Amino acid sequence: MRDAAARTAGLPATPLVAAGPGAWLKLETLQPTGSFKVRGFTNAVALLSPAERRAGIVTVSAGNAALAAAYVARENDIPCKVVMFDTAPPPKRVGVERLGAEVIAMPRIKVLDWMALRGYESMAETFIHPFANEAVMAGHASLGLELAEQLPGLTRVVVPVGGGGLIVGIASGLAAAGRDVEVVGVQSDGYDLWVRTMAEGTAPALTPATIADGTAGPDQADMHARLAGAVDRWLTVPEGRLRRAVAELATNHRVVAEGAGALGFAGAMELADPLTATVGVVSGGNIDPRLLAALLQEANA
Amino acid sequence: MRDAAARTAGLPATPLVAAGPGAWLKLETLQPTGSFKVRGFTNAVALLSPAERRAGIVTVSAGNAALAAAYVARENDIPCKVVMFDTAPPPKRVGVERLGAEVIAMPRIKVLDWMALRGYESMAETFIHPFANEAVMAGHASLGLELAEQLPGLTRVVVPVGGGGLIVGIASGLAAAGRDVEVVGVQSDGYDLWVRTMAEGTAPALTPATIADGTAGPDQADMHARLAGAVDRWLTVPEGRLRRAVAELATNHRVVAEGAGALGFAGAMELADPLTATVGVVSGGNIDPRLLAALLQEANA
Repeated sequence: MRDAAARTAGLPATPLVAAGPGAWLKLETLQPTGSFKVRGFTNAVALLSPAERRAGIVTVSAGNAALAAAYVARENDIPCKVVMFDTAPPPKRVGVERLGAEVIAMPRIKVLDWMALRGYESMAETFIHPFANEAVMAGHASLGLELAEQLPGLTRVVVPVGGGGLIVGIASGLAAAGRDVEVVGVQSDGYDLWVRTMAEGTAPALTPATIADGTAGPDQADMHARLAGAVDRWLTVPEGRLRRAVAELATNHRVVAEGAGALGFAGAMELADPLTATVGVVSGGNIDPRLLAALLQEANA
Repeated sequence: MRDAAARTAGLPATPLVAAGPGAWLKLETLQPTGSFKVRGFTNAVALLSPAERRAGIVTVSAGNAALAAAYVARENDIPCKVVMFDTAPPPKRVGVERLGAEVIAMPRIKVLDWMALRGYESMAETFIHPFANEAVMAGHASLGLELAEQLPGLTRVVVPVGGGGLIVGIASGLAAAGRDVEVVGVQSDGYDLWVRTMAEGTAPALTPATIADGTAGPDQADMHARLAGAVDRWLTVPEGRLRRAVAELATNHRVVAEGAGALGFAGAMELADPLTATVGVVSGGNIDPRLLAALLQEANA
């Protein structure tokens, strides 16, 4: 994991800011492209062979992995294609195209089919899975290593869980740093796929009903064991609380977070106490500005 | 100025983030209390005698200096009173009271009278002027020193000007670091008091018509010579551009800025070019959430 941290060294450490007694926020919103995903893609691209670099990369994404893939590809001057849900928030899609990547937009169900049938295997580009990829997860481990350096007394980290790559990476980074930290996975009750999957042993059939679109991916069987090993505790945040959390982050902490990003804040505020040190990972900030406006009005009506 | 930087050492350096070709943003929005003002008050309180500490401090403020004074007083366990405009955005007033300070709210015209008549001289507390105070400005110099360390190639810094203490402090910090950097002062055309005062030699009579409430203070004669010495260039941003800038900061950079804070961003975006290094100082982020919502909707209508 130390190697992965070295290969993401071009990315500056993101800020850790105080958020109340015993509570801190890790601002992945200030990464290039506005989410933690650049960590993983920076590491994955660094591991490509020269021939693979020439052919380029392809990924699939609800939005943030697409932006990160496009950004890292541009930084490395390699081609990039991204398969995206056609429901992705406009800033994400526009951002990907501005970064020079080719967007292949499909309805959610078609994307899931393409993934299940491994449609990417017939492409010339190297497929980089947005979370269930060892190099991507190893890149995310750099976040755990940063936290270990930034907060010596760290006792608990609260991490939004979508695909699961972020929390698995953070847990391995903290372990690599020799730190015994409680790793808490958090989801909205509007799409608590992993909380229920880990409790019940099988994935329930759920339709996302949450502003945390970044966490609304499908079940991924090869993540079950990884998540069981990485996550010490699961937490569910009511969707109504999550909507207020986005407004609180903007109003009280001057942080723009997307729904998934605000899960880490909401969870950390619930668990933090003045005698320990809890970090909420604000994983991303690519929110539709009209939704942000609506949430601010809702909280101040 | 190096001494002042040492006395603000309890404050972590704020992040400097890339914002485009040749452009960076200095995020004072992530200071405790959400603006640069804690730098100045931290230094001013560090210089009080034991007797002065017991009697406490008093300041006058459109909002951000009040929050900073209250925060620094609480950190030092000393009493604090703040005279505020009764039109200050609710988050600022509520925040001051939550920090344990006493708010004395007055209409704007009464506050200006109280200042002109030096009403504070009859009080037991030590008056700390929110900007025209040597210790406060010396504290702000720490921002210039930080920039010199964070961006070795720095060529230009764009700073919102309200009272003028921030830009005078930054200029002196850069000078103390031995750096030759162009210092640009920016105001809205909805209240371009200093731009016109410096051009015309006397202060015009203006009524603020800007969302940059943090820059809407009155003329202060003893700042004229200081500003003439510190500012290399003046820039006026149209009020309509400033309103869009707040939305752009939130949408494209995941930064919540108040109107005054967005002036530094708008000015930097206008002047930045890929061959030099321009920093916009985002001086604060305490915006009424209803105004932020309105600006987001306006920009996405």
